[in-house]
Amino acid sequence: MLNWLLIFLPIAVYLEFSHGNPTWIFIASMIAILPLAGIMGRATEELAIRAGSTVGGLLNATFGNATELIIAFFALKAGKLEVVKASITGSILGNILLVLGLAVFLGGLKHKTQVFSQKNAGILTSLLTLSVLGLLIPAVFDLASVNFANFAQPADLDFRLSVAVAVVLILIYLGNVYFSLVTHKDLLSGHEEEGHEVAKWSVPKALGILLASTVAVGFMSEFLVGSLEEASQSLGLSEFFVGIILIPIIGNAAEHASAVVFAMKNKMDLAVTIAIGSTIQVALLVAPLLVLLGLAVGQKMDLVLHNPLELVAVVAGIVIANSIAKDGESNWLEGLMLLGVYVLLAFAFFYFPTVSAAAH
Amino acid sequence: MLNWLLIFLPIAVYLEFSHGNPTWIFIASMIAILPLAGIMGRATEELAIRAGSTVGGLLNATFGNATELIIAFFALKAGKLEVVKASITGSILGNILLVLGLAVFLGGLKHKTQVFSQKNAGILTSLLTLSVLGLLIPAVFDLASVNFANFAQPADLDFRLSVAVAVVLILIYLGNVYFSLVTHKDLLSGHEEEGHEVAKWSVPKALGILLASTVAVGFMSEFLVGSLEEASQSLGLSEFFVGIILIPIIGNAAEHASAVVFAMKNKMDLAVTIAIGSTIQVALLVAPLLVLLGLAVGQKMDLVLHNPLELVAVVAGIVIANSIAKDGESNWLEGLMLLGVYVLLAFAFFYFPTVSAAAH
Amino acid sequence: MLNWLLIFLPIAVYLEFSHGNPTWIFIASMIAILPLAGIMGRATEELAIRAGSTVGGLLNATFGNATELIIAFFALKAGKLEVVKASITGSILGNILLVLGLAVFLGGLKHKTQVFSQKNAGILTSLLTLSVLGLLIPAVFDLASVNFANFAQPADLDFRLSVAVAVVLILIYLGNVYFSLVTHKDLLSGHEEEGHEVAKWSVPKALGILLASTVAVGFMSEFLVGSLEEASQSLGLSEFFVGIILIPIIGNAAEHASAVVFAMKNKMDLAVTIAIGSTIQVALLVAPLLVLLGLAVGQKMDLVLHNPLELVAVVAGIVIANSIAKDGESNWLEGLMLLGVYVLLAFAFFYFPTVSAAAH
Repeated sequence: MLNWLLIFLPIAVYLEFSHGNPTWIFIASMIAILPLAGIMGRATEELAIRAGSTVGGLLNATFGNATELIIAFFALKAGKLEVVKASITGSILGNILLVLGLAVFLGGLKHKTQVFSQKNAGILTSLLTLSVLGLLIPAVFDLASVNFANFAQPADLDFRLSVAVAVVLILIYLGNVYFSLVTHKDLLSGHEEEGHEVAKWSVPKALGILLASTVAVGFMSEFLVGSLEEASQSLGLSEFFVGIILIPIIGNAAEHASAVVFAMKNKMDLAVTIAIGSTIQVALLVAPLLVLLGLAVGQKMDLVLHNPLELVAVVAGIVIANSIAKDGESNWLEGLMLLGVYVLLAFAFFYFPTVSAAAH
Repeated sequence: MLNWLLIFLPIAVYLEFSHGNPTWIFIASMIAILPLAGIMGRATEELAIRAGSTVGGLLNATFGNATELIIAFFALKAGKLEVVKASITGSILGNILLVLGLAVFLGGLKHKTQVFSQKNAGILTSLLTLSVLGLLIPAVFDLASVNFANFAQPADLDFRLSVAVAVVLILIYLGNVYFSLVTHKDLLSGHEEEGHEVAKWSVPKALGILLASTVAVGFMSEFLVGSLEEASQSLGLSEFFVGIILIPIIGNAAEHASAVVFAMKNKMDLAVTIAIGSTIQVALLVAPLLVLLGLAVGQKMDLVLHNPLELVAVVAGIVIANSIAKDGESNWLEGLMLLGVYVLLAFAFFYFPTVSAAAH
Repeated sequence: MLNWLLIFLPIAVYLEFSHGNPTWIFIASMIAILPLAGIMGRATEELAIRAGSTVGGLLNATFGNATELIIAFFALKAGKLEVVKASITGSILGNILLVLGLAVFLGGLKHKTQVFSQKNAGILTSLLTLSVLGLLIPAVFDLASVNFANFAQPADLDFRLSVAVAVVLILIYLGNVYFSLVTHKDLLSGHEEEGHEVAKWSVPKALGILLASTVAVGFMSEFLVGSLEEASQSLGLSEFFVGIILIPIIGNAAEHASAVVFAMKNKMDLAVTIAIGSTIQVALLVAPLLVLLGLAVGQKMDLVLHNPLELVAVVAGIVIANSIAKDGESNWLEGLMLLGVYVLLAFAFFYFPTVSAAAH
């Protein structure tokens, strides 16, 4: 569907190697990621079908947020830690407010009241609440410690606490995988409703395409990050805004598409599972992995959010997800309001350009 | 019922024009508003019955918070922006804690356990959560931005963000009206259970009374605001306290009365709809309208709450409303606790007199 | 079961009177409290059975948190107000995250999905939300007031507000007792499911044992508090950490044991009632009683939490409890996540040693 956008892949490569205008490199590589993410998702699914439900589920779960992880990894390697952290927050907000909002709104325009399993949504929002609150502990710790004058080396403490949080969250992630694939595989089986799909690609083909698209996403991410500084300046955006709004929209494009498609087919359980499940993944896997990958590439990335607005927005996101999920029903007005809150937050984040730099 | 209080209307007028004691003007005009609000509500209802369910619903929805809006408008015109903002917060807290608390407590004393539709309450609290969190974005933005030293012109940014928030909230309000009156008119039809009422007043009579009572409320509000400064000093109250506690009690008196009456008749769905619906209205209509009216009368009113206690109290109010609503049941103890939290907040707000002035 | 630990009772007495190493006195008295708390609980239950359901319920409700109250009282008498306050926060967090987490996790390992009454859990979490938010008002008030420069005597205002909060919370507690034992005795009757127990001890025996164990807990608490400063230094822990993590674990040991036992017997309603009910008790009875006892022994104890991390952790605890309770189901993964969040918080609190002292 979006495959014609692949034309931006060679354009981005050409611009990069001909030292073209960074703004155009930035835009071309960003657009090129969209179809590549779709292809990665498709190849993962093909492999997952061949692999059977357990290993396949694991594959889907692990590669679900691969695009985001790759972009963030290249930003991390380039030392753009604030962008990486902004993209984590932005991904959480984007999934809860934008992905879920679009799905609920567009689904709600077509179907008057859409129902979904309160039980499934209840388990998902409980996991969401616990995982995101765990992720926020270093930020709150830092906020608390700056209130105390004679507090030695908070930066390093922040980092040590972040590593501890990352390790605990990854353990919980492993627990979550074991839970979904072994002890409670029947419970969160939203995706299997889709019908018994038949794999269309051979395993070598799927593997080859997965490899090629992953490599391509990697290159595009490197171009994107390399042109980020100049492009954002010439576009009048802050790097923080790019990290918190643009990168998550690109990184989550696949989730957006499938959640909206399922919502319009009135399969709200799948839409809710994608939006909230993806948020849980960001908190339990993507964010902690980035802290540990930072250790590997020599970047001390902590999980401290320096903008209190981010912190409050994420907590508000949790409250909203709980509130939306609790009644097992949705309608277009709820979707409109989710989108409204997202737009207002984007507007507020837009006004933090010079600030995020000044904060350090 | 309260019509004998109309005697305070000529008293207030007499005191005002004879340049009487501001404290007595303040008290008389405040009391006179009570029966006038009831009469405005009655006249609106009469018109609504004649107008049929759609236009009638619109009338009721728009004029439901007219008293609050009128009082706040005169405070706005007089440049008392902190009082206006305090009355918005106070109205949200008053509806969730005091109106709902009184209804749940008094209803619960008469009926052991009262039930209400979880579905209806779930939709209402979802809308409440989203609308109030949207309203809080400027306050959180301001709180976040004051943490950054070299942040230029935050005041103006606050205002621009507040205008943006106001516009988005009013769009959501229009969406909400369309939702309740067109696409989902069967859903939130609490009020129609009341039985098919028959209009007793002719249209000209109802219109005339509505007009007269609105004008009278306007005059009383002007007297109230004019005497506010001297009266609050001589009563030992801060203007902030008057704005956050007294004005909302007066402005919401009609909601108090009807929510309690319905609760005692064991019609908890109506009581919950009034209390939470009125809170949603304040967030989606009254507050943004005041920002835009401020533009019209040359007052730059933003939506920033300068007292963090207000912010936290409102967020707590959301959590409480969600918590109370989720099980579809209420009892007197829950009512007692709602009232207890309100009393404690009133007590805390009472201690902020000199402070709210010193903050600027 | 734990009665062999009583050996630490004479050890602690011997060490204390021979002026032994404070660290050993600290450890021995702490361990000795564990079996004593169990014996106190057993004696209270025997008396409660004899007393009939109403008075018995009152006995159980009042003595349920006696151990915590006694330890905290001796810390209060010694002027260790920060330790007392930390133990209140720690007790709330310990009940929600550790007691409930262990019960849900261990119960969930044995039983795939455990169900409990949504209705019962809904009432409990509503009461929890309201009582804990009431308790937090002085802390938020203080946090708000420190943002204002020229605010006279905040310390005394904090205290006056705390006394007012304490009085209101105790009134609500009395309302709660009246509610559970008189107007709604059928509602929260979790404990009675246990079957009609027969008292095994005579009344004088039960009274004697209750008295003896209470006195012994008192002595152990005095030793514990007396050795706290030196012991915590030599153990490399802050007094704050001892107050927020160790004392609540000791004080709540009885709740831990019974909640886990009930969960493993698949009686999740009882486990949830114990964990959340005990948290409500801390907020409505233990904390306000300590403020009033402070007045009696000349210690101006307020309810202000000076570490914002505590405040946020408690609010997160409320959100988590609501989230866990709302679907009426639990599984081991939820338990693992509750424990994970507790471990992360303990880790963060561990890093506040020098800070809590420096703050004042």
